[in-house]
This record gives sequence, C-alpha cells and structure tokens, in this order.
Amino acid sequence: MSGNEEHFFEGAEKLLEIWFEETSCNNDDLRNISRSDWEDVLSQVNCEIISFSKNDLIDAFVLSESSMFVSKRRWILKTCGTTTPLKCLSQLIKLASLNGYKIITDLFYSRKNFIRPEAQVTPHKGFTEEVSYLDTLFPNGRSYCLGSMNLECWYLYTFSRSDMKLSPGHMINEGVESDPDQTIEILMQNLDQNAMSVFNKKNILSASDATSMSGIDKILPNMHIDDFLFDPCGYSMNGINEKGEYMTIHITPENLFSYVSFETNVAMTNYRNLINQVINTFKPGKFIVTIFANKCSLAYETMKELEVEYSKESHWKRTDMQCCNFPSYNLLFAQYSYNGKNNCSI
Amino acid sequence: MSGNEEHFFEGAEKLLEIWFEETSCNNDDLRNISRSDWEDVLSQVNCEIISFSKNDLIDAFVLSESSMFVSKRRWILKTCGTTTPLKCLSQLIKLASLNGYKIITDLFYSRKNFIRPEAQVTPHKGFTEEVSYLDTLFPNGRSYCLGSMNLECWYLYTFSRSDMKLSPGHMINEGVESDPDQTIEILMQNLDQNAMSVFNKKNILSASDATSMSGIDKILPNMHIDDFLFDPCGYSMNGINEKGEYMTIHITPENLFSYVSFETNVAMTNYRNLINQVINTFKPGKFIVTIFANKCSLAYETMKELEVEYSKESHWKRTDMQCCNFPSYNLLFAQYSYNGKNNCSI
Repeated sequence: MSGNEEHFFEGAEKLLEIWFEETSCNNDDLRNISRSDWEDVLSQVNCEIISFSKNDLIDAFVLSESSMFVSKRRWILKTCGTTTPLKCLSQLIKLASLNGYKIITDLFYSRKNFIRPEAQVTPHKGFTEEVSYLDTLFPNGRSYCLGSMNLECWYLYTFSRSDMKLSPGHMINEGVESDPDQTIEILMQNLDQNAMSVFNKKNILSASDATSMSGIDKILPNMHIDDFLFDPCGYSMNGINEKGEYMTIHITPENLFSYVSFETNVAMTNYRNLINQVINTFKPGKFIVTIFANKCSLAYETMKELEVEYSKESHWKRTDMQCCNFPSYNLLFAQYSYNGKNNCSI
Repeated sequence: MSGNEEHFFEGAEKLLEIWFEETSCNNDDLRNISRSDWEDVLSQVNCEIISFSKNDLIDAFVLSESSMFVSKRRWILKTCGTTTPLKCLSQLIKLASLNGYKIITDLFYSRKNFIRPEAQVTPHKGFTEEVSYLDTLFPNGRSYCLGSMNLECWYLYTFSRSDMKLSPGHMINEGVESDPDQTIEILMQNLDQNAMSVFNKKNILSASDATSMSGIDKILPNMHIDDFLFDPCGYSMNGINEKGEYMTIHITPENLFSYVSFETNVAMTNYRNLINQVINTFKPGKFIVTIFANKCSLAYETMKELEVEYSKESHWKRTDMQCCNFPSYNLLFAQYSYNGKNNCSI
C-alpha cells in the first residue's frame, strides 16, 4: 500500500493486435524489423524495452509499461499508464510494409474504462477521441462498448478486411480459411493484498521468486518465462512456448488502485479451469473476462457453453454477459464480482 | 419526397417500458389512472392523445407522436420527434403509487441513434444526458450501447429489481417466477418509396385504406386495429388482441429520412417469419431487430437459434449481432443491410 494518497498508476492497458495478410514470399517476417526501429516505434508510445526473449516462432519484449509480441505476421502491443500506443500506428504500418506486409486483415484495439480518464493524453482522451484517430487510418472500422457504460465497461475498436470484401451475394464466411486463433484476457481489480504483497521489492528478492511464490509459473506450465520486478513494486512477465503461443501478466499491486491483467492465446477447448486458476492466484474482488475466437478456433464452440452457464453454487456474481458476432471472430465478454466468503471458483 | 429540403422529422422513437410489482389487492390497476391524468403526464412529454382503443386487458392510445399502452401493471410509452418522455417519469411513478403500485420491478429505456441528435432537447441531448437523468431516479440502473458506436447503434438503459435483491449465496435466477414476456422491435430505414406512397394523404383516402393496401392488417391477424393517417403524410397504428397482447407501427414516409418501426409482444417460438413479413411489407434498405425475452418466455430458447443462424442465400447482410444476458431478460440485437436485388428474406 502506498503511504502517499496522491500516488496513482493506471494499470489498465491499451491493447493493440494487428494481423497482416500472408504473403507469397517466405522471407517476409515482422521479426526482421530491427531493434532500433522498434525503439523508434516505442518512443512514440512513450515506453521502452526492458527485457527480451524469443524462440523460433515469436519475439517477446517486456516494456517499461507492459509488453510487445512480434510473430511472422502478427503484432501485439499492450501498454499501461498514460502511454500513447495509437501514435505509433502509422510508423508500424510503414515498417510492416517495408518488410513485405502491405495489407492488414484484422485490427483490434481494446481497453477497460480507466479509473482516471482525465490523466490520459491525446489521442487517448476518451474512447471517442481514440475512435476518431483510428477512423482516420481505418475508414471501415467499428467501435463497441461492452458492459455497462455508466458503471464498468470495456471498449473495442475493430477493423476486419472481410467487412470490406463483402459484396452482393457474398456472405459472411471469411476467416474459415485462416489459422485458428483465440485470445483470452482476464482483467482483475480490487485484489487481495496478501496475494499482492509478493510483487513488492520490500517483501521479495527477485522477479523469479515472485513468479514462483505467487504460483504464476503453474498457470500455464511449459512457458519460457521472462519476468521483471519493478522498483518499488509492480511486476510484468511474458511467457512463450514452442508452438509460438504467449502469455503475459502485468501487476499493479498498490491497494488503492490494484490491477492485474492476464492474457494468453493458448488454444483450449474450455477456459473455465484456466479462469479459476488465475483468479485463485490473484484473488480479485471483481474481474472482466474477454474471449475472442475465430471460426476455426477450438474455443469457438465452447464459448457457447460458458455463455449459457450460470454457476449457482459459486460466490461470484456475474454482473454482465454479452457476446458479439463479428465477420471472422466471436467475442464473449463477462464481468464478475465477488459475492461471498468461501469458494473462489466461477 | 418532400419538396423542402429543410423539412425534417426524427422518426426514431424513445421507448419506455415499466413493470410494477404485483400487489395483493386485485383492484390495483394502472388503467384506473384517469384520462386527464394521462393528459397531464403526456403534456410533459410534449404530445397528445389522438385516438384510444381498449379491451378487457389493455388500453391503447395513439399519440400525436406515436403510442402509449397501459395494462394492469405494465406501462409502455413510445414517442418520436423531439418529445421528452423521461420528463414524465416522476409523475408517472407518483400516479402508479397512488394506484397501488409502489415498486418498479423492471424498467427499459431504449432508442436507436438519432439522425439529428442536435435537434433534441434536455434531458434527451445525447445518451449520456439521458443516463444521468435516469440515474437520479434509478441509482442501480445500467446503460448499454449495442451495435457500432461510430456507425449505427441502439442505446438501452435498464433497471431491474432483481439486480438489487442479489446477496451472497443468492444467484441470478430471478424472473423465473414472473409471467412470460417478450418484445420484438424492428426499426427500419431507407424504405422503398413505392411501399411508402400509401402513407401519404395525396395518394390514399383513409387510414384504414393505408392499413389494408400496405398489408399491415395481414402481419398479425386477430388484432383489433386503431390506425391514424397524418396530414400531409405519416401513419400510426395500435393493434390489441384478446390475450392483452399489442402491436404498434409508426411510419415516417419522407424519402430523405424515411423510418418505420414495428413492435409487438406477441408470444412466438420463432420470429423469423414475422421479421420476413414485416420487411417484405415495408421494404427497408436497412433495419435493426431487437428481441427481449425473459426466462419463461417461449422466445427465450429460440433466440439462440436466430443468433447462430447465418443466412448465406439471402440478400441481407447481417452487419452486427450481439446478445446480452441480463438478470431476468435476454436481449438479442441484430442489424441488417440490403445487399442484393432479388430475395427479400433474411
């Protein structure tokens, strides 16, 4: 807990994910973009690279504010605080083009509502400003607000090339030919201060101690973990595996504005156990789950199951539940509040 | 088509529906509220009663701007133009209380995005203002935006008493004991001018001619119809049946801002044929469908069917599809654009 009541940090991240169209040239690869070019890109976002790991399929960067993942034709940037990820989009698109990727097939920009929106800077001063900025780059983009606008919500801007390809008689069945893809995010708030105490340098010696003592290393075994403990508190980790899948966790432990995000694209037929393990690790007072799955993802059908499932025995109250059908992806959004004392499973 | 390009009318309605808790006294009935009290209520909304019909279960009013329906413990007000329905809420609640209904169990306020939001007056200058106004009356209300915020969308504010009754260990299964209820709305724009020509006094003698020539009387047979043709153009109708069910249609035929709304609470296991009949009657260029169904409604399960059904053969492109699970109701929202020349079925 911070002794200074004025101290504040916006843990909630702005998340950008961009997919480029597969090219005929095997050498085209976003990972050919140089470190100094990435540093230039990130300077526009107002953050820096503080750690790096990679395997044959994915490059993972821990940033001063969250993470960046680069695969052959997919780019993910997740940044918290008052960073400005939208500002780097033009340069990113230019760099991708120089590396063979001229066509964006899907773009997703999302974030939770901020605790202190007034602290954000242009073009992030409100979702309306973010949408106007994105509309200048993606004239056919769509913006959504999931959850309750006047209480807690999650904003999404999405652009899909299949939206544009639709012509008379040509129906929405794009994406079937694409790779299976799914992303789950769990955004947690009001966290248990005992669970958070491990992410403070006062109480722990190293990032790897925090990773093992918290149980983070058990959430998705077989991940190669790159973790970082901030001074005086706070924690970030990237995990990557041999399939090119990733996980990432970012922790703002301060009691007054505690926030933990978990994200992964590992393919699972059912995310229920994973969700339970994550919330039992961090013990939030409330959380949001979002699951994106395209039509060839294993998760696509099982999202239906989660959707209809009410858990009458649990001590979590599902306060909101929405699903959206997009041209090539389905999205499930659910919000839970802790409603009891004992059981911690949804 | 209007000769004067400045002429404009906002066809999109603001829709209020309120349910009160059943009382132990059989004489309690919202229909005991006097005509002059309703006139007072409606003066705050800025509209007047122009026609009235009733049966044993429901009172139906055609208004200068749309409709009002009063049943024993349910009140529905639907008004278009620049009317101010939220302004009458306090008085309505007072009148309901004087007639035995002191507890609101469910409230729904919804509307499509306006073509000209700047023409609206307080408290309807934007959804944010409407939500702030409603929040003063319903501190636990929730606001939503369905569809794409930057293109076309539909706003909903909802208050449910079951939201408030939830306590530890008490899960979301309210509503199961309530009456089956469902409402379908079809909000149409860019309508075929040939289909619209019947709703103009230049071309037709009477409201009943418009009703039969358009095919409105065939949409839901067995409805007792009260119809009205406006001068020089425009049309409203209320239909009520012996089960206390209602239907209502409102038509703004002018080419530059054509708009037709259809709404009913008739119980059906599948709304697909009804939707097709409505869009074949009015021939819109685009439309929104919303279906509310509580957990004991016949429609509840079949909403799932509509949700997953993509119609590859049709010439309608579904541009958006979302569903929401609320404590006692499910909501399905879908948006369609005409995408071809021949077939008019979804």
